[in-house]
Amino acid sequence: MTSIGIVGAGIGGLHLALYLQQHDVPATLYAELTSQQRLAGRLPNTAVHWGPTREREHALGVNHWDEQADDWCVRHVHFYGMFGARTMTFTGMNDVPGIGIDHRIYTSTLLEDFLARGGDVVYGAVMVGDLPALSDRHDLVVVSAGRGSMVELFERRSDGRPFTEPQRFICTGIFDGIAPQQPIGSSINVIPGSGELFQLPFLTFGGRKTALLTEIIPGGQLDELRTVRYEQDPVRFNATVLRMLRTSFPHLAELVDENIFGITRAEDVLQGAITPTARRGYAQLENGKWVMALGDVSLVNDPVLAQGANTASACAFLLGEAILADNLVFDEMWCARAEARMWDYQRAAFEWTNHMLRTPLPGNATKLITTACGNPEVARSFINNYAAPQANWDILASDARTDAYLTRHGGGPVTPPSAGDDRATTASTR
Amino acid sequence: MTSIGIVGAGIGGLHLALYLQQHDVPATLYAELTSQQRLAGRLPNTAVHWGPTREREHALGVNHWDEQADDWCVRHVHFYGMFGARTMTFTGMNDVPGIGIDHRIYTSTLLEDFLARGGDVVYGAVMVGDLPALSDRHDLVVVSAGRGSMVELFERRSDGRPFTEPQRFICTGIFDGIAPQQPIGSSINVIPGSGELFQLPFLTFGGRKTALLTEIIPGGQLDELRTVRYEQDPVRFNATVLRMLRTSFPHLAELVDENIFGITRAEDVLQGAITPTARRGYAQLENGKWVMALGDVSLVNDPVLAQGANTASACAFLLGEAILADNLVFDEMWCARAEARMWDYQRAAFEWTNHMLRTPLPGNATKLITTACGNPEVARSFINNYAAPQANWDILASDARTDAYLTRHGGGPVTPPSAGDDRATTASTR
Repeated sequence: MTSIGIVGAGIGGLHLALYLQQHDVPATLYAELTSQQRLAGRLPNTAVHWGPTREREHALGVNHWDEQADDWCVRHVHFYGMFGARTMTFTGMNDVPGIGIDHRIYTSTLLEDFLARGGDVVYGAVMVGDLPALSDRHDLVVVSAGRGSMVELFERRSDGRPFTEPQRFICTGIFDGIAPQQPIGSSINVIPGSGELFQLPFLTFGGRKTALLTEIIPGGQLDELRTVRYEQDPVRFNATVLRMLRTSFPHLAELVDENIFGITRAEDVLQGAITPTARRGYAQLENGKWVMALGDVSLVNDPVLAQGANTASACAFLLGEAILADNLVFDEMWCARAEARMWDYQRAAFEWTNHMLRTPLPGNATKLITTACGNPEVARSFINNYAAPQANWDILASDARTDAYLTRHGGGPVTPPSAGDDRATTASTR
Repeated sequence: MTSIGIVGAGIGGLHLALYLQQHDVPATLYAELTSQQRLAGRLPNTAVHWGPTREREHALGVNHWDEQADDWCVRHVHFYGMFGARTMTFTGMNDVPGIGIDHRIYTSTLLEDFLARGGDVVYGAVMVGDLPALSDRHDLVVVSAGRGSMVELFERRSDGRPFTEPQRFICTGIFDGIAPQQPIGSSINVIPGSGELFQLPFLTFGGRKTALLTEIIPGGQLDELRTVRYEQDPVRFNATVLRMLRTSFPHLAELVDENIFGITRAEDVLQGAITPTARRGYAQLENGKWVMALGDVSLVNDPVLAQGANTASACAFLLGEAILADNLVFDEMWCARAEARMWDYQRAAFEWTNHMLRTPLPGNATKLITTACGNPEVARSFINNYAAPQANWDILASDARTDAYLTRHGGGPVTPPSAGDDRATTASTR
């Protein structure tokens, strides 16, 4: 029987392993860290799982957190101008609530699920030099985690590096002392030209807390936070975040209890930057065997639209379905078809994310968001399409597409908002 | 609202038009001929509709012939050696019976269905020079029929012409005076190096008759039929077919009533040859608009595996689904995604058909068929996969794939059959 080796036990590798296990396809998971090591580690991201990812979790029987998240439908979107004045606001409802969840807990739990169901796990780091031996042991090797030469095994796509450098400096962490916005949900707070701040209800150690993900455009209004490293000066870091809230996002500062505000634990903060990169979905080893790429190995997405974990999960299922449909020989023909199916999903997430990363924000994106402020249907669609990146990219891929969409949905001609014009949808809460 | 213009009212154009009509997308069908003109015309093909096509007909509410076909599950496959001796025989059951149906009746009926449901039909030939005007009238134009420059609008794929000339001369017609093989079903009769004869229960004028589709390899044992044109000498044509049955397919000759054997009507015969060709699924007009290709316009398949009509129907639904999913602007991005989905289906039908057309038959195909003769599971799978060309192509795309399949399904090592060795599955009827 077909045997699949999966290198890396992030959400992509785990969803694939659990999917194959559920369909009686022997799979071995090569995990660098044990569950205990993961739980003791640093915050890896502040991912949000959208509806389709939650449906996949349900299908895999790993939807352990449903009851703690089912009230998080609302997404507040605010645009700010100078001096923290909100210029536009809209609120959309997710048809299915997203879950912000700590991946130390999430991946540990799923790894234990896989083990408890009889799954085969091999611990320890796998290097690119180990792949030939793995490819002899398995019919197919899927690489879903790795660094350096492991990732570079997969050729960068010709259109896979739209920017030469990171477009945001990312600072994310779990905070005590900040209440969620009401009605409870996440908020997206945008300062054009300076960056974005995401406030997320977040399941982590000790229950529900708040994650603040700041996406900083160098040289903008949020730039100070870029240069303050938590591990070098925790007090100054927390003070800088609080000052940023007061100065740039005063509505959020109102939710802060200054007596306890700050990063929850030293491990609960992550600062860095990534350059969006898309790689080919498969590669050939020197021994002639083919290996597939999954998750961050094939697609590095800026977290600004929360597409990374969701794309990895979607692709894990696409790959699992491809394995069930045809598992005679994992040759180039197989890899090319599986890659095409994954890329069809990945491309929309990648292109849409990169479009929204541009400075200044492209005119059609501004137009769409401005319309959403006065049009609950457009707002609802934009918010829900975070779960269906192709749908938002279909609308934003060209000016003609955005115009066609807005014409059809009654947006009509749109004039840019003037300063201090706090537009809102009928459903919004200012 | 989106308006779609569909040029050509064969099975592909009709299935797309009916699909869009069912989903309230305005569609105009440009049909060269009226229903009455079609009914009076020449036999266009002797297509068989496999299970998935019948499911699509059911979804469209045009499954008018179910009751006349539900006993046609059996497919008899015979291989012949010298002097009409059968060397191998197997019988497979289609899970869903195929229907052989006269497309003069079929397309006329579906055209009337479309009209009766309020469909918009414009009669008359459409030339390539008419496309710019149509592209101004509709949001998307789909070209599903055409000749010459209309077809050449769509670029031939780099791998879209595997043979420089036709691999078979095709002679197909509807016959009186030949009974179906029992249990009732179709029979595939192969003479390696000379060609194939398909005996099909066929719904046509006056009810169920028998179609004989002969695929002639020039220079082989069936070559005489290639040079006899029915319209030049009907008596000699009928006599040549009968002589071919007696000489090369004596089991079939036993089913003939010589007193009435022959082509039913002068319009009920078709002789010709095609060179398998795959073209790109979309093209740009000089006015900048994009048009899509459907059916024979993008893929010309030899009928040896009965994939043409089924592929056109499958692609009509893929195109319809693509139109429902995204209909903001039918730009190059839209066309490329829709084409990729269609080509994923088309490629398997095309590659598998061309593989089976090769002379001599490739070793792995011989091995698979030889195994089917002694292995009912392999026989059943091979027969049913006519409805799922990707599945058979997955098995036949390389020797390694065929070996993996046969190893898994207990075929074991296979020795070529010796002359006169009339192998059969346990379920076969000799």
